[in-house]
Amino acid sequence: MSYKSDIEIAREAQKRPIQEIGEKLGIKSEHLLPYGHDKAKVSQEFINSVQSNTNGKLILVTAINPTPAGEGKTTTTVGLGDGLNRIGKKAAICIREASLGPCFGMKGGAAGGGYAQVVPMEDMNLHFTGDFHAITSAHNLLSAMIDNHIYWGNEFKIDERRVTWRRVLDMNDRVLRDVVTSLGGVANGFPRQTGFDITVASEVMAILCLATNLEDLQERLGNIIVAYRRDRTPVYCRDVKADGAMTVLLKDAMQPNLVQTLENNPAFVHGGPFANIAHGCNSVIATSTALKLADYVVTEAGFGADLGAEKFMNIKCRKAGISPDCVVLVATVRAMKMNGGVTKADLAAENVDAVKEGCANLGRHIGNLKSFDVPVVVAINHFVTDTSAEVQAVKDYVATQGSEAILCRHWELGSAGVEELARRVAEIADSDVSQFSPLYSDDLPLFEKIDAIAKRIYRADEVIADKKIRDQLHQWEEAGFGRLPICMAKTQYSFSTDPNLRGAPTGHSVPVREVRLSAGAGFIVVICGEIMTMPGLPRAPSAEAIMLNDMGNIEGLF
Amino acid sequence: MSYKSDIEIAREAQKRPIQEIGEKLGIKSEHLLPYGHDKAKVSQEFINSVQSNTNGKLILVTAINPTPAGEGKTTTTVGLGDGLNRIGKKAAICIREASLGPCFGMKGGAAGGGYAQVVPMEDMNLHFTGDFHAITSAHNLLSAMIDNHIYWGNEFKIDERRVTWRRVLDMNDRVLRDVVTSLGGVANGFPRQTGFDITVASEVMAILCLATNLEDLQERLGNIIVAYRRDRTPVYCRDVKADGAMTVLLKDAMQPNLVQTLENNPAFVHGGPFANIAHGCNSVIATSTALKLADYVVTEAGFGADLGAEKFMNIKCRKAGISPDCVVLVATVRAMKMNGGVTKADLAAENVDAVKEGCANLGRHIGNLKSFDVPVVVAINHFVTDTSAEVQAVKDYVATQGSEAILCRHWELGSAGVEELARRVAEIADSDVSQFSPLYSDDLPLFEKIDAIAKRIYRADEVIADKKIRDQLHQWEEAGFGRLPICMAKTQYSFSTDPNLRGAPTGHSVPVREVRLSAGAGFIVVICGEIMTMPGLPRAPSAEAIMLNDMGNIEGLF
Repeated sequence: MSYKSDIEIAREAQKRPIQEIGEKLGIKSEHLLPYGHDKAKVSQEFINSVQSNTNGKLILVTAINPTPAGEGKTTTTVGLGDGLNRIGKKAAICIREASLGPCFGMKGGAAGGGYAQVVPMEDMNLHFTGDFHAITSAHNLLSAMIDNHIYWGNEFKIDERRVTWRRVLDMNDRVLRDVVTSLGGVANGFPRQTGFDITVASEVMAILCLATNLEDLQERLGNIIVAYRRDRTPVYCRDVKADGAMTVLLKDAMQPNLVQTLENNPAFVHGGPFANIAHGCNSVIATSTALKLADYVVTEAGFGADLGAEKFMNIKCRKAGISPDCVVLVATVRAMKMNGGVTKADLAAENVDAVKEGCANLGRHIGNLKSFDVPVVVAINHFVTDTSAEVQAVKDYVATQGSEAILCRHWELGSAGVEELARRVAEIADSDVSQFSPLYSDDLPLFEKIDAIAKRIYRADEVIADKKIRDQLHQWEEAGFGRLPICMAKTQYSFSTDPNLRGAPTGHSVPVREVRLSAGAGFIVVICGEIMTMPGLPRAPSAEAIMLNDMGNIEGLF
Repeated sequence: MSYKSDIEIAREAQKRPIQEIGEKLGIKSEHLLPYGHDKAKVSQEFINSVQSNTNGKLILVTAINPTPAGEGKTTTTVGLGDGLNRIGKKAAICIREASLGPCFGMKGGAAGGGYAQVVPMEDMNLHFTGDFHAITSAHNLLSAMIDNHIYWGNEFKIDERRVTWRRVLDMNDRVLRDVVTSLGGVANGFPRQTGFDITVASEVMAILCLATNLEDLQERLGNIIVAYRRDRTPVYCRDVKADGAMTVLLKDAMQPNLVQTLENNPAFVHGGPFANIAHGCNSVIATSTALKLADYVVTEAGFGADLGAEKFMNIKCRKAGISPDCVVLVATVRAMKMNGGVTKADLAAENVDAVKEGCANLGRHIGNLKSFDVPVVVAINHFVTDTSAEVQAVKDYVATQGSEAILCRHWELGSAGVEELARRVAEIADSDVSQFSPLYSDDLPLFEKIDAIAKRIYRADEVIADKKIRDQLHQWEEAGFGRLPICMAKTQYSFSTDPNLRGAPTGHSVPVREVRLSAGAGFIVVICGEIMTMPGLPRAPSAEAIMLNDMGNIEGLF
């Protein structure tokens, strides 16, 4: 049996005009700003007009720790959204936008897969509606205004060695990681060492995704700390008067993008912050708006549940005043086998024992999610080589953890393959059993917040941080930043900080290498291990093979 | 009497849905890719389908050398387009897109002024339809792929000191003019000195504006010379296999943008190359498409006629196989006075003698334009302080030059103020008197082409170029680039290379500082004087005052 590729399926999509998709959510065409015939932004006026609507139910899709076998978190998010619509519910999907740069390195990330995809796939992997370009412009305007301030006399006495605000490009370009600017003489400014990150790592991206409206956006942008003086006092974005113009640049980007699934159901695709140095969720404004328009909103968090769901709960839900009514934890038989020690080459062979062994990873995520007092359902994302015995082994294990696992075949069958999950999720969400509470309170000291995540989510024995880091945290508490949540930046491949420790490791410690204050986004970034904020291109980048074919179709992007 | 500001007038515009504007040119709504309700791209399929249509008449609007008094070239282009429609002609306008970066330095450039404007003005000064962002991405992808090629072994033996391809941002950011990249160790590549230009200075911009279709675009992108080896042989964009992916990134940007004038007439706004190191005209694809759809197409060239019209004739018309049926030369009484020695502070007082004195600049432009065997009409763009005697002085002078001058009041009155010019222009264009021929033939040696422009357009006595530059030109001729046209980069304020020499200077020489080969765009850039390709921000950049007001309107951008 042969299967069509994702791109083949996407190109055969019977898309409906975006106005029809908007109508399903009660958005009139005058409130949709079209970008072509299959993409649109929802107007700010419309968003304002629905604020008194009752919220629908929120369903979070998260996953076990990622393995090379793949889990299909976005695929399941899309499939579940279609499944809910199939069983007669009014459901919408909220996912992140893709970053352009990495598409030229490895093959581009599609939005879902198989028969559970969001379209137009090609646009979404290229410029889409220009949101990331707007973020790049806003970020780099601030950079230019900081250096311009120094150039024209440095009234704020910025210490040129302590400018923390870098520049960004949506491009994998390793040579820009560490640069010296302002060479060439007096007219070009004061030489200093700085660098570029990829756009998704910009604090502006995190801010856009957490802001509730344009006023809140400007306030947060103004709060960005861009540099320090010799006396270590901070200089803010609003000191160099960049917050207004940045808001103007981001005005359209703040409006959520509406597209559709292969089954013509509404999908909001908006924002895409890094899931390590930022919180990794689509925008608050998209999720909040979807909740006002649909009875069920299916959204996802970045990476595995230890990183992504933790941040969704402790950062996004806390800031947005929302909470999940049901959590879907995605697992695959193949990933269980890899967690159980099987190599990628041996995945096709049945191995029930390895599945059982690997379930420890799944079990710990279930336990962690339950600690937020939210109901959890496991979605087994079916792969063609999975055997009945292997699937049953996962189901049996999940039952022992006080949860339930449901086999889903949305990749192969679309919504028809995910009806059972959709019914169960709707039932749970409607039952209002969720009693969501975040892991820690705002007023817990910063180090204790880190400690809570490390011990209760990662199940580490201890957090290791030298005096300099602890002092820094104390200083921030004294400066009024003590109530901020923590944004952990660690490997996504393990509960620990060692990417090779699969399963459910114990006895490990969490070494904190660095802490950073994202005062605009409103969190403290805690860096454990090497975090790359500007990727490079591989030896044979996929860009070499990307081109238009004779039909005018894009080849090589997927 | 008080006048409304441009932005006040623009905000009061009674815009029609862009589909209605498209219908005026026979573009059905399915062939318009909307960007919001008032902007759209014209589909490639539609453009292909009209190729057998007969061309309409082409009218070029150019101007005297710019002075601080302002000439109103774009305003006249827009006004004349509206005027032609008013007298019952089917006319379209083709102008350039605005660059984002400079809007944050000085106040943004509107598209026209008074009652002769193109809207939506704010979008056009911000992200518009994302074309410039696409060019930035395509340019920087090539940059990343060059450095990546060197990083992974440098198979093409690129001399790292001779990488000519820089990076671009659409931002005024002086500190990026001259940088060292790849610091920080082995993983970040080989340190080398390079820099950033503003996006409009990118050769990709010039290429996009000269390409006739996507195949031609890819061919030209592949031809870009990105570096040299130690033996001085060139390395091309296609060597590092970037041309295909760049074309994919530019696929939408190649489609012309349709907007409307205040009087709801169609305007194509597409492309915006620098007018010094590039040719300074809107895209060939927009002009060519407009000619297939409208009976009259009004377009403009950059700067004054010595630079802009010369390049329009010798580069754009030559490459696109088009030619103007009538040329409109815009002048103002105020600019005549400044050319006659009056300072800006004294412009309001009547001074007929100064007007007469300054007319020499106008006269030389008339003569130059006639040397292309095209008919020339002078448009006197009326300003409220102009007196009848001053206007008459210009008219009388122009009559002595074998041309005619018509007073236009489109700024104040819209199309009603420009009927006379519209009638006369249509009459001339319909008469088919134009016998356009470029200034020089393809097979003239490169130095003789420079000499022809300097002596016959600038009226210089000689071109000064040292042996190194002459040798370089010979080398390019031997390498097969001898048939390319010349793109002069000199000050726009004077016929000479000295910006302070107003009027019609004689006895000057043209010193060539540097020559550059734009092998993708297909011209030789000849640099005479200092050319800034990355502007800086002023002491108090306009960005500091740009913000959204309580009404959600943008303040400070205009």
